[in-house]
Amino acid sequence: MSVLGPTFRWAALERLVDDAARLQGMLDFEAALARAEARCGVIPAAAASVIARSCVVAGLDVDALARDAARAGNPAIPLVKQLTARVAKEDPAAAGFVHWGATSQDVMDTGLVLQLRSALGLIEGELARLADALAEVADRHRSTVLAGRTWMQQAAPTTLGLKAAGWVDAVDRHRRRLAETKGRVLVLQFGGAVGTLAALGDQGLAVADALGEELGLAVPPIPWHAHRDRPVEVAAVLGLVAGTLGKIARDLALHAQTEVGELAEPAAPGRGGSSTLPHKQNPVASAGALAAAVRIPGLVSTMMTAMVQEDERGLGGWAAEWETLPEILSLVGGSLHHLTEALLGLRVDAARMEGNLEATRGLVFAEAVQMALSRRAGRASAQRLVEQACARAREAGRHLREVLAEDAEVAAHLSGEELRPLFDARRCLGASDTLVSRVLAARSAREGS
Amino acid sequence: MSVLGPTFRWAALERLVDDAARLQGMLDFEAALARAEARCGVIPAAAASVIARSCVVAGLDVDALARDAARAGNPAIPLVKQLTARVAKEDPAAAGFVHWGATSQDVMDTGLVLQLRSALGLIEGELARLADALAEVADRHRSTVLAGRTWMQQAAPTTLGLKAAGWVDAVDRHRRRLAETKGRVLVLQFGGAVGTLAALGDQGLAVADALGEELGLAVPPIPWHAHRDRPVEVAAVLGLVAGTLGKIARDLALHAQTEVGELAEPAAPGRGGSSTLPHKQNPVASAGALAAAVRIPGLVSTMMTAMVQEDERGLGGWAAEWETLPEILSLVGGSLHHLTEALLGLRVDAARMEGNLEATRGLVFAEAVQMALSRRAGRASAQRLVEQACARAREAGRHLREVLAEDAEVAAHLSGEELRPLFDARRCLGASDTLVSRVLAARSAREGS
Amino acid sequence: MSVLGPTFRWAALERLVDDAARLQGMLDFEAALARAEARCGVIPAAAASVIARSCVVAGLDVDALARDAARAGNPAIPLVKQLTARVAKEDPAAAGFVHWGATSQDVMDTGLVLQLRSALGLIEGELARLADALAEVADRHRSTVLAGRTWMQQAAPTTLGLKAAGWVDAVDRHRRRLAETKGRVLVLQFGGAVGTLAALGDQGLAVADALGEELGLAVPPIPWHAHRDRPVEVAAVLGLVAGTLGKIARDLALHAQTEVGELAEPAAPGRGGSSTLPHKQNPVASAGALAAAVRIPGLVSTMMTAMVQEDERGLGGWAAEWETLPEILSLVGGSLHHLTEALLGLRVDAARMEGNLEATRGLVFAEAVQMALSRRAGRASAQRLVEQACARAREAGRHLREVLAEDAEVAAHLSGEELRPLFDARRCLGASDTLVSRVLAARSAREGS
Amino acid sequence: MSVLGPTFRWAALERLVDDAARLQGMLDFEAALARAEARCGVIPAAAASVIARSCVVAGLDVDALARDAARAGNPAIPLVKQLTARVAKEDPAAAGFVHWGATSQDVMDTGLVLQLRSALGLIEGELARLADALAEVADRHRSTVLAGRTWMQQAAPTTLGLKAAGWVDAVDRHRRRLAETKGRVLVLQFGGAVGTLAALGDQGLAVADALGEELGLAVPPIPWHAHRDRPVEVAAVLGLVAGTLGKIARDLALHAQTEVGELAEPAAPGRGGSSTLPHKQNPVASAGALAAAVRIPGLVSTMMTAMVQEDERGLGGWAAEWETLPEILSLVGGSLHHLTEALLGLRVDAARMEGNLEATRGLVFAEAVQMALSRRAGRASAQRLVEQACARAREAGRHLREVLAEDAEVAAHLSGEELRPLFDARRCLGASDTLVSRVLAARSAREGS
Repeated sequence: MSVLGPTFRWAALERLVDDAARLQGMLDFEAALARAEARCGVIPAAAASVIARSCVVAGLDVDALARDAARAGNPAIPLVKQLTARVAKEDPAAAGFVHWGATSQDVMDTGLVLQLRSALGLIEGELARLADALAEVADRHRSTVLAGRTWMQQAAPTTLGLKAAGWVDAVDRHRRRLAETKGRVLVLQFGGAVGTLAALGDQGLAVADALGEELGLAVPPIPWHAHRDRPVEVAAVLGLVAGTLGKIARDLALHAQTEVGELAEPAAPGRGGSSTLPHKQNPVASAGALAAAVRIPGLVSTMMTAMVQEDERGLGGWAAEWETLPEILSLVGGSLHHLTEALLGLRVDAARMEGNLEATRGLVFAEAVQMALSRRAGRASAQRLVEQACARAREAGRHLREVLAEDAEVAAHLSGEELRPLFDARRCLGASDTLVSRVLAARSAREGS
Repeated sequence: MSVLGPTFRWAALERLVDDAARLQGMLDFEAALARAEARCGVIPAAAASVIARSCVVAGLDVDALARDAARAGNPAIPLVKQLTARVAKEDPAAAGFVHWGATSQDVMDTGLVLQLRSALGLIEGELARLADALAEVADRHRSTVLAGRTWMQQAAPTTLGLKAAGWVDAVDRHRRRLAETKGRVLVLQFGGAVGTLAALGDQGLAVADALGEELGLAVPPIPWHAHRDRPVEVAAVLGLVAGTLGKIARDLALHAQTEVGELAEPAAPGRGGSSTLPHKQNPVASAGALAAAVRIPGLVSTMMTAMVQEDERGLGGWAAEWETLPEILSLVGGSLHHLTEALLGLRVDAARMEGNLEATRGLVFAEAVQMALSRRAGRASAQRLVEQACARAREAGRHLREVLAEDAEVAAHLSGEELRPLFDARRCLGASDTLVSRVLAARSAREGS
Repeated sequence: MSVLGPTFRWAALERLVDDAARLQGMLDFEAALARAEARCGVIPAAAASVIARSCVVAGLDVDALARDAARAGNPAIPLVKQLTARVAKEDPAAAGFVHWGATSQDVMDTGLVLQLRSALGLIEGELARLADALAEVADRHRSTVLAGRTWMQQAAPTTLGLKAAGWVDAVDRHRRRLAETKGRVLVLQFGGAVGTLAALGDQGLAVADALGEELGLAVPPIPWHAHRDRPVEVAAVLGLVAGTLGKIARDLALHAQTEVGELAEPAAPGRGGSSTLPHKQNPVASAGALAAAVRIPGLVSTMMTAMVQEDERGLGGWAAEWETLPEILSLVGGSLHHLTEALLGLRVDAARMEGNLEATRGLVFAEAVQMALSRRAGRASAQRLVEQACARAREAGRHLREVLAEDAEVAAHLSGEELRPLFDARRCLGASDTLVSRVLAARSAREGS
Repeated sequence: MSVLGPTFRWAALERLVDDAARLQGMLDFEAALARAEARCGVIPAAAASVIARSCVVAGLDVDALARDAARAGNPAIPLVKQLTARVAKEDPAAAGFVHWGATSQDVMDTGLVLQLRSALGLIEGELARLADALAEVADRHRSTVLAGRTWMQQAAPTTLGLKAAGWVDAVDRHRRRLAETKGRVLVLQFGGAVGTLAALGDQGLAVADALGEELGLAVPPIPWHAHRDRPVEVAAVLGLVAGTLGKIARDLALHAQTEVGELAEPAAPGRGGSSTLPHKQNPVASAGALAAAVRIPGLVSTMMTAMVQEDERGLGGWAAEWETLPEILSLVGGSLHHLTEALLGLRVDAARMEGNLEATRGLVFAEAVQMALSRRAGRASAQRLVEQACARAREAGRHLREVLAEDAEVAAHLSGEELRPLFDARRCLGASDTLVSRVLAARSAREGS
């Protein structure tokens, strides 16, 4: 990997989306094609056997391949050439049957699908690991109170459990999306030059079926070479995932601020340091997820823009996908993995959370007071009284509870006894505990089924 | 609509995504909330009844609302204020129960969901109309031959039916995506200030259930205010649709070029004219779909970027959605409608298609020859012979068939008798007819079920 | 304006980019064209005079225009038609000379340039107002200390003046960019159907020169209709502006957090309230600027994507610009105006800033200690000692100064006397004051010249 | 380079933007910093000398660096560590002065600026080469007629010279933009931890000046670490370049279509072939430029989105730039180089161009006829007569000239003699020749100055 590779990417995933994996995916197609065509009697079994065992990346002249791809316009052409030469060395007759009846896009698209199958599998596993980690936070911290914040201002009390339940629910939705998307995208691409399979005469569809079987891929009703919604849907779903990871990372980063200090990424030697500041513990996994959330939308828009591909094979649009989709997989996978690791070691400072609820001197409980007062005095009066009290408290730097207690009009409706519990965060949590349970129960129901 | 409105948009859809629809969606929420809370005994039934019948757009001071929204930060706040004032006029006591226990985002998000329900319904219907139109083209033209083109060059023969079957298959995939997405997005948003429903005490979830029933919306396990994957998924799926519409439009535009002339949008007085050129018949629906395909990806990336929303309600991210998602609906719907109309009147010049197949003097049949020759002479020889013949034909401006017929080495393998049918487009169509049937059959199966 | 108009936009600018302004820009072109052609003897002076005085928006049938534009493919065609009819009523002979020798794109592009001239002028004025406001903050607060924050963690002391000087310097760079861009974009578009001015015979260039004079626009060496870098450059520069506004807004929002409380937008009745929380004062101008910073990049990417326009007039690409560039102007101008207003009323809590510097119990001064210790003990030792002390201070919840003072190894190099000033923020500000002066001096030099 | 490297990139440029160049840029900063600090008496000259000669990439443990960067959050931290260790081996005392007073962002940003200086220099040279190549086409083909096409339909005659002059004029504008941008971006970044240069006491600005001198970079009034408009402007200008390259490539591709055949990329063995079609000569350089034009806008939007960076150093935003800007340089440079090469070998088929002008049987001359007729019969009549004639010609498949000649009403105004030259493309070229000359003269004037 490059100098920035480990920062943004995940080694286990890189192995599935790098150049070698790309070439192997294409070679797996060629091997399966030969076997399928032999099964259908289109090419000799002996040729298929030589071809299939020649379909390994090791030994390819990758530099030449890269150079020739630039001239030819795509890497399948020189790959087929090198494969043919390799087969010819062993069995000249077999060489004539390499890539029989297929076209470059069949090789590249199906190769991509094979890469997607393994890469999406890995990503799904990591999403599950993330969801489980978050579910545990949700369950463990269902009673850990902290300030709910809206518009980056303290609003009203909530729990860390509810916050984490929101995270896990979103992650689980992505898992369902990914499952649906896989059903659409993990299919064979096989159409020959313009999608008619003409080069195979009346054997085209039989070969397609056999090829699908060889590769374990469903055969769609019609080749999709010029219709890119399948790979672009993968990009879009991963874009949604990146957005959620970015949201979780932003939450983490905000809570990790010096002045807030409620959450922190795990500490480790060399982690989140500084070249000049000895005291820094920067939230590096959050930074990575936020960077990915900034980068992915542009890459998804590239994939969507590229969909306008001309006729039976576009000029430029298809090529625009070649590096973009692997980059999306790589960046989403990388930030997913690093953020998951960080969340598995999440540090929670419940005392600080509770302390911060006092930062507003009771203003964060204003809604609770207002609702209680509304029930007694009507909402209009309640609103007026509480707003005035908030203003007075803010100006005087005093606690809202005290200001309210001194207000005769308020006192007419709510005694000091009645006021006190309204400023107890644990009593202002509404349905939060049940909501956490619902999220966890929904997960169990799905996993159990 | 604006001056460019009818060019890019569709009146029937605009009515569902315009300002009035936005406000009505929000008012529908408030009405249903009041009814639900009355059912749960949270507010008096009489109040609910006054509130509910006050929830109509007519009579709102929209200018004041707009002005106050800018100050407040969102339009729900002044809307609730105007609604409260309106209710107060009729029943001062009822006014205190407007918007009881809800927050701005509950109103705006659920209002959006209600708009999405009707807008996506309309779009689905139009996608079905488009798919049916394309299916008819596929069926009718399954034997209409034309040049398949790759890299914007003639490649090998195909049929208009197969091309249209590719279009319809893609459109049908979008319909399935949209159905899945609707299942996720058409749900209630109801969480109160920070998602705990604290203002409703222990009645929060009961009200939520009743509210869902009132609106005909499922109640998700947990409020989703800070997790935007639901609306962003709508944007993404519509982005996929826009890409396919752009692809179809590009195909149309390429086939409608003066020098190609195979397809044309319907002609009508004033359609696709020019301010200066009396002979022009510009493909305006295609232009619209291509423009949308250029515009939508950036808007989708905006929606994805906006997902990084802070804590319980983001600063800026949420607001970034407010105009963007309706714009996506509007532009995709508009281009969908105009392109559907154009395709319903698609003009096909089959003679020109067949004529254009002669433009290369037989080169477009080179693959057919090469495959036939490969079966006799081995692929290496076949490739060499056909490539040489192509080069000679191109240089001499002669027909490939003649050049091949004169080549002794070719003649040793293929007689003139055998060569001739290889240059008959109708015999080089491989599985195209069956592929068309498969697409149409798959549609029937789905519709029938 | 729409319901969300005042939230995101600026009325003074809207008047320059709205539909009426678009139509007037086009009519101004037609009037100037007629006058220019009369001056060159191409059309009768009397006709020009009737045409010119007919070129007003009032009285156009805008609905019909919108409807016909959708059919024709652009609004210039029906506008010319309505203008012709209007002229014909007054002088049938003159009607034949409307739009003489021009093409739709001449009208629309030059009309756009006229809109850009006024809109960019307004934006430039507001950028100047913003820069001046920020410069005053920089000057006034050059000694107001606060924590510099990196990676969203307190890092080392800085001043509000330096922070504001960074803001103003960026805004001033945008003003220079805009000036350069105006020099390129505020030019005539006039080329006729395909850019040759053929319809004007040998008078084309004379008319172009006269037309440029009439409109006060430079005449470029060649029509640029198919080359869109000019308007796209405007979009890009505004994109840069939006990024800076977003950055300033994010800084504001972070400093306005409940737990930080160092800066606040101005308070006003109804400003930044909540539909449910009586104590909220949300930073609404910051939210608007952040929303714009999320939206603009996607719109800029649309403009760039649209540059790939076919031959002498593209299909779809050009149309993709029509609503996008005005939207960029509108959103950038709106957030610029609202943020400027907010910054003019910026509330600074210097005491809170100073207080927050104590949040880390001295860790924020770690760099100062380390540099001082490095000069005595060598950097390696210094780094080790300070890192250890930071860790001990953090664990024990004690002040770094105390921990250091107790460390014998540190004491060997730095006495308590020497340690104390290292924890005085005012002594750790390096060149900040000079840097502020340099920025302000550079401004004066530019303004003065 | 990777398998797709040579397809999308340019080896000469890759060497300036790859990992080694990135590290060398950072080391060049460290070396210059040591020398500058020695000159200012901040560190010992002997230490500076050891440090400076240790600043070479060779011998770095890049794998360890990559791994440590992921942990630390940026590559500058481990680079400084490895550099310090290397210096320590030679002179332990000197090691303490490595990176003295600087921060990671100083290293990385100034390193980037150094990379930009060389990379933009190379790109400027290639833009000049492209512009010169296009200027030659413009000059040589100022009389080569072809159909001007609007909305992808033949519109009116133009010349290849005029088309090429439009291309060259756009490329030259980009060269001027790049020159302006370089003036802003090729400046030092040096501010220390939070931009105050506090670690250098009162020597900060003196060191900054000396450092600027060492590196040949201007020193801006204030550090710009948190304000990213400088690098983002580079991205934006390159985005404009990519758009123009894409536009030229689209023109090429359209003219190279089988049915058009007016232009072609150079032919060469293995260039633009097919894995299955022996006759294909695909326009591969055009495909590359079109792919880049699809990819760059999304990357530019990423750079703009990333501008919203928090306080004195952002979380995620800055990191989002690290791979994105080099990618933009690489992709724009690659497509620029490949397209320039292709245009240097551009094949022009002037006969085909002239032949295609006959494809519409005279309709492409309709504007010329209409203008001539307008001068005699008034525009309204002329328009009606020519439109009717066009319709009749189209329906009957006859030549417009014949249809017009037979029309008595037309004949009343224009004799057959007068009609004939209106259908001569060479007489309908308006100012095209002068426009070409103006573009070429403007270039000479600029180059000469």
